[in-house]
Amino acid sequence: MMTNPHPLRAKVRIVLVETSHPGNIGAAARAMKNMGLDRLYLVQPVDYPNEKAVFRSASASDVLDQVVVCASLQEAISDCSLVLGTSARQRRIPWPLVTPKEAAIKITEHGAGAGDIAIVFGRESKGLKNEELQQCQYHVNIPTSEAYSSLNLAMAVQVLSYELFCASEAATPERVWDQLPATNTDLEHFFGHLETTLAEVGFHDPDNPRQLLTRLRRLFLRIEPDQMEISILRGFLKAVNDATRRQF
Amino acid sequence: MMTNPHPLRAKVRIVLVETSHPGNIGAAARAMKNMGLDRLYLVQPVDYPNEKAVFRSASASDVLDQVVVCASLQEAISDCSLVLGTSARQRRIPWPLVTPKEAAIKITEHGAGAGDIAIVFGRESKGLKNEELQQCQYHVNIPTSEAYSSLNLAMAVQVLSYELFCASEAATPERVWDQLPATNTDLEHFFGHLETTLAEVGFHDPDNPRQLLTRLRRLFLRIEPDQMEISILRGFLKAVNDATRRQF
Repeated sequence: MMTNPHPLRAKVRIVLVETSHPGNIGAAARAMKNMGLDRLYLVQPVDYPNEKAVFRSASASDVLDQVVVCASLQEAISDCSLVLGTSARQRRIPWPLVTPKEAAIKITEHGAGAGDIAIVFGRESKGLKNEELQQCQYHVNIPTSEAYSSLNLAMAVQVLSYELFCASEAATPERVWDQLPATNTDLEHFFGHLETTLAEVGFHDPDNPRQLLTRLRRLFLRIEPDQMEISILRGFLKAVNDATRRQF
Repeated sequence: MMTNPHPLRAKVRIVLVETSHPGNIGAAARAMKNMGLDRLYLVQPVDYPNEKAVFRSASASDVLDQVVVCASLQEAISDCSLVLGTSARQRRIPWPLVTPKEAAIKITEHGAGAGDIAIVFGRESKGLKNEELQQCQYHVNIPTSEAYSSLNLAMAVQVLSYELFCASEAATPERVWDQLPATNTDLEHFFGHLETTLAEVGFHDPDNPRQLLTRLRRLFLRIEPDQMEISILRGFLKAVNDATRRQF
């Protein structure tokens, strides 16, 4: 059971055309569920159902339970108003070509209010045929190294699903921190205490005392300490002061 | 053989800790090569070498040929100056947490001129342990659906490698700095010296001594100190040690 379906992602189906390896179907189902997608369409899968698909789907067997198996790509996409086809290379007649990030933006712009959306993936060995790609509004190309450009099918599903998740969540995890940030006053008191303590323990750069302090300021300002961290650092300096002063 | 190594990506290693399934190692190698990465480190793999790894690597067996197997995470990252650890959830003491996109930006900002960079992935079942995560400057969290948040390991490698490929292909100006970054070894020596000194001056949190050290680790890891800054900090600790010991 999918919980809390996202209105846009609920419109998106992943279509796999003539997949050879059932393990890839299961891995694709898992990748989809991880990214909040649950509508998987299989066009003439070579070997499905198969227990390898269930095994590789891990906790996404519910996505497999509701798979739609189709006799043709046409059948899988006929009610969709936006169809994107993944393509490893540019074809003879250039088509509008987008990156996964751009594809995710196209999909979010298309919006949850319009018709359904399909992202189509081809065969492991040969991808989508020209006549299949010509049924798509956009072609999506995953950027890769020239040395080895062929992604595993389920990996390609993962990358597209991930980008779609990020775009639909506008996903930056909220900053979680357990303490308030130190104020400028906290910092200046700390720097004063540090300078006194440096002098007290006789630590200075004989050639360039100012540079030492400048470098320490740069270090601790860069860190953006929180209030507890400043307390800890000042507690340490205080302990140093006490330990040093006991000797006099 | 990798062709045309990218100067930044050549500095990046993928570190897999105690991987159970050799198929995941092979799939990770393929994902890496697709995205122009070729340095794979395995910390105590459970079942490796194994033909399943070779099979799943497809045309990336060259990445497996040059795998570095390590006895500890420490060994795998000791010469790195930027270490990012993947983490599924927020820990008790929050750490700087970034998305894969932000992680890729951190890495490109770190630059090819500085030290090596590690992205660390934990066990399939349990991820990274707290003490492993505390060796990392940043934690990376892949955004996922709440309904199913556990990505397959190789899929996680794919997402991070993909983001790094996208970020490194887009030209980002390198950070300009006047000193070399501290390595993980420099940092661990500093933490050892700090801990000794804290004890010597009698500074500790009587209620929770471990949390104090964890907070100080988080503080100084976050800062990404350079080598001169570490020298200055250790010089200060040394002066504290000398000043304190004089009294006995």
